[in-house]
Amino acid sequence: MLPVQAQTAAPAGSTAGAFQADSVFFRKMADNVLSSPAAYENLRVLCKTVGPRLAGSPGMYKSEAWGEKAMKEAGSDKVWLQECMVPHWERGGTDEAWYSYKDEKGKTQKIKLDVLALGNSMGTGSSGVTKKAVLVNDFDDLEAKKDQVKDAIVIFNNHFNPRNLSVGQSYGESGSYRRSGPSRAAKYGAAAIMIRSVTAAQDNHPHTGATSYDTAYPKIPAAAIGLKDADKLISLLKSGAQVSLYYKSNAKFYPDAKGHNVIGELTGTEFPEKIITVGGHLDSWDPAEGAHDDGTGCVQSIEVLRALKAMGYKPRHTIRAVLFANEENGLRGGNKYAQEAKAKNEQHVFALESDAGGFTPRGFGFTLDKQKLENIRQWLPLFVPYGVYQFSNGGGGADIGPLNRLMGTPVAGLSPDGSRYFDLHHAPNDVFENVNKRELDMGALNMALLIYMIDKYGL
Amino acid sequence: MLPVQAQTAAPAGSTAGAFQADSVFFRKMADNVLSSPAAYENLRVLCKTVGPRLAGSPGMYKSEAWGEKAMKEAGSDKVWLQECMVPHWERGGTDEAWYSYKDEKGKTQKIKLDVLALGNSMGTGSSGVTKKAVLVNDFDDLEAKKDQVKDAIVIFNNHFNPRNLSVGQSYGESGSYRRSGPSRAAKYGAAAIMIRSVTAAQDNHPHTGATSYDTAYPKIPAAAIGLKDADKLISLLKSGAQVSLYYKSNAKFYPDAKGHNVIGELTGTEFPEKIITVGGHLDSWDPAEGAHDDGTGCVQSIEVLRALKAMGYKPRHTIRAVLFANEENGLRGGNKYAQEAKAKNEQHVFALESDAGGFTPRGFGFTLDKQKLENIRQWLPLFVPYGVYQFSNGGGGADIGPLNRLMGTPVAGLSPDGSRYFDLHHAPNDVFENVNKRELDMGALNMALLIYMIDKYGL
Repeated sequence: MLPVQAQTAAPAGSTAGAFQADSVFFRKMADNVLSSPAAYENLRVLCKTVGPRLAGSPGMYKSEAWGEKAMKEAGSDKVWLQECMVPHWERGGTDEAWYSYKDEKGKTQKIKLDVLALGNSMGTGSSGVTKKAVLVNDFDDLEAKKDQVKDAIVIFNNHFNPRNLSVGQSYGESGSYRRSGPSRAAKYGAAAIMIRSVTAAQDNHPHTGATSYDTAYPKIPAAAIGLKDADKLISLLKSGAQVSLYYKSNAKFYPDAKGHNVIGELTGTEFPEKIITVGGHLDSWDPAEGAHDDGTGCVQSIEVLRALKAMGYKPRHTIRAVLFANEENGLRGGNKYAQEAKAKNEQHVFALESDAGGFTPRGFGFTLDKQKLENIRQWLPLFVPYGVYQFSNGGGGADIGPLNRLMGTPVAGLSPDGSRYFDLHHAPNDVFENVNKRELDMGALNMALLIYMIDKYGL
Repeated sequence: MLPVQAQTAAPAGSTAGAFQADSVFFRKMADNVLSSPAAYENLRVLCKTVGPRLAGSPGMYKSEAWGEKAMKEAGSDKVWLQECMVPHWERGGTDEAWYSYKDEKGKTQKIKLDVLALGNSMGTGSSGVTKKAVLVNDFDDLEAKKDQVKDAIVIFNNHFNPRNLSVGQSYGESGSYRRSGPSRAAKYGAAAIMIRSVTAAQDNHPHTGATSYDTAYPKIPAAAIGLKDADKLISLLKSGAQVSLYYKSNAKFYPDAKGHNVIGELTGTEFPEKIITVGGHLDSWDPAEGAHDDGTGCVQSIEVLRALKAMGYKPRHTIRAVLFANEENGLRGGNKYAQEAKAKNEQHVFALESDAGGFTPRGFGFTLDKQKLENIRQWLPLFVPYGVYQFSNGGGGADIGPLNRLMGTPVAGLSPDGSRYFDLHHAPNDVFENVNKRELDMGALNMALLIYMIDKYGL
């Protein structure tokens, strides 16, 4: 049978009485955040005046300046940039692909494919490559067809499983072809690969995202196809047609660039040396505005500072909002933050990340001592009126992972509703217009409430 | 302090064991619904080939034919139409409004307003009216200004409160100006009224919706203004400017038309005479496709039948999907359904409605005996993995309200996330493209699960 989740809201009872003052604070915080234009307006400016901001791109520098300004306007006691070298990969213009085959009348048909080179992938050179297309259903099928893929372009028929109750699980499963498909196919001599975009969207936008190469094999070009185009191509290949596929990408790496984590803080009044971090990542893929991924996490983190400051709250611990550099294709910002924390012997009490989209919040996922998780679950009834009903075991964020691994810092991630995230994740439709103000604000509010509770009661 | 909601998910425990077979059924139902294109495709056809379908309009007749076909395709044992006379109000073309005033240089400025006549409102006649605009903040302010509004167009400055945790509450508060604003102003001789659209949307779409007149006063024209336009006009009025406002609407009533509730059923195998109803309303406002209001409720109700039938489930009770006529501006369909049930002495065990948008589900709200609600809350752990964590006290739907009032039938409503609903409710952007397939399917799934549990265990 299905596991029935235990991490549902605790029944209301004596808890409510014990936290009566907090409940009043929650309501005041809600009044502040829900009636403020700040987070939504910050996001609009980031999306519309900066836009794409991949590591090393001109947008990265503009976004750092935006972040510094926004942190100051939020009322931070201190704002600074933490330098870190970041990889600099560029798409190098528009990726192109089309395929040709002979129809039943013997006439050659040529069909355009809407594609995006995968992040970190190698280009084809400016003249592109034209190769036979070979359909492979999954990695097992690749093994079965290993003698057929030499010098071909492998088309992975990776599906995003709609039956999983966690869309993150579907992303992980389908995304394994994005992450390791190129080297798995290169092992058998493939010239390039293409995957179905890692999404269940009903449109044809291709979705990029990082791949990585196993250095044991040649680094071959790799792209994602929009689902409607992929359906047509795959249906044709299944019919047994001989398909010739052209692909051109000018993607390549340039020397590392100097990037920065952008940090703002409210200095602790009682334990200034003990740090609570709340963050998102500032970089975003090049074909869109990076609204949900992860502009929303950035503006929500800044909103935590703004709202606490605006309410005159004096934090016991130092509360830092961090806009991490280079999550998408290197994680250099998150690594740098943890390495410097360790080198300086900083005391990190807790870190929270929002990097699952600015959708309506449903819970938080925690990576911390199990007993401590049980303890803080007594806070849940306070959160339920604001839409958060689960404190799950397991969770965090890519950028705060290093802090957890290097320093043992307890971490958590905001868990918003995931239904729409992968419809626009890494795709051209990840734009400001697809963020709802109330959903964004409700996420920021719950983040602020959690940070407040941890600042007040510790972990 | 804030009330801490008690109706959160019950802790998992022995319940899980007691309902082990049901948990397996839930998972199979999820596999069926989440991997089916049916509900989403039905919605596409309704929105794109029928579109607007207000009572008495050509779209109403097309939608009835669509519903009959969809019910048959879903595998209903019986499908029929239940006749009911419906009001026939028509907008009569495009509503027009603009205002003029003298700017600081004495030059006359003329500004267009994006407006929609309120449903059921009277038109102005084809030449329109031009009157002085008078700003009124709320009903108290109207009383204070009762001597100033004679022969004027009253502009109600009704706000949608972003601080309420229930957007439905904000809708109710702001919507009171839509519902009773015209007669309240007509009492003091106003020539017409305009309200701010009942929404917190960030765009300028005007939102229509039914008004009703108090027969003690003249029926004056009434319209809703898009929020951006309303902000500008209200800001101008607050500055003390003399503003002349032109409004033209050809809205009027025609004789009642013959409409129908569309009904499909799976006939009960054990208690065929005992009826469980699941429904939404088929009619929708004229400026949009009625996707979330309430195309989604219709296709979700049909999906309940389809999925149960497809799984080979033999219901003990008769399960009826009902697409109600004329919810928006008359409720004649819901009234007819209940009146006929009473006249025929039918046994109605339970009725469920989905009419709060096809968004991600969070719970159900029930109107039934308190002890019975406590009893069925033991089912909650089964629902939590599918996103439903609250069985709240209070709820139902407009169309099944008469069944509850006339027959005492227990009723419930699906409670989806409300963050986005009033952004598009009764507005031109309530279109198919703004419905997410997974959110729609998750709602249909939870409805099917609840109907299954009530069919199996009763109430």
